[in-house]
Amino acid sequence: MFIGNIYITLKEGVLDPAGKAANNKLRDLGFTNINNIKMGKFIEVELEAESKEEAIRQLEAISEQLLANLVIENYRVEVVEGDK
Amino acid sequence: MFIGNIYITLKEGVLDPAGKAANNKLRDLGFTNINNIKMGKFIEVELEAESKEEAIRQLEAISEQLLANLVIENYRVEVVEGDK
Repeated sequence: MFIGNIYITLKEGVLDPAGKAANNKLRDLGFTNINNIKMGKFIEVELEAESKEEAIRQLEAISEQLLANLVIENYRVEVVEGDK
Repeated sequence: MFIGNIYITLKEGVLDPAGKAANNKLRDLGFTNINNIKMGKFIEVELEAESKEEAIRQLEAISEQLLANLVIENYRVEVVEGDK
């Protein structure tokens, strides 16, 4: 079994209202040293695969087919643990 | 300036309906080798701080005060880039 991580982030130029709201709220709380917050997703996946390379291909496939919206989001995958 | 990452994940035992839905949908799509998906947040932050240690403390503070819901979520922070 492998454990993989998928990081999904908004592409440059795409509006990030949740990040903007967090930024504003942090300024209200006195964190004036926080300049820019970008909200993304962190997805942990357990999967079966023949090799680490195959696990990476599977993570890329599920990102493209379901988890990421490629119009506005980028994704990055990594395998952090595996028994093969 | 420092760049930090914050990872927010659901605590063990907390229901994860978005992860469950993704898992079900992936099985429908034929990814029967995907066993478990956990949905979390990945937050990128730019901040000013006197040192890397201070940057980490700031990231922990904003996680606890705003970004994470400590009743149901865990958080982890790291500083990935900095000029000091």
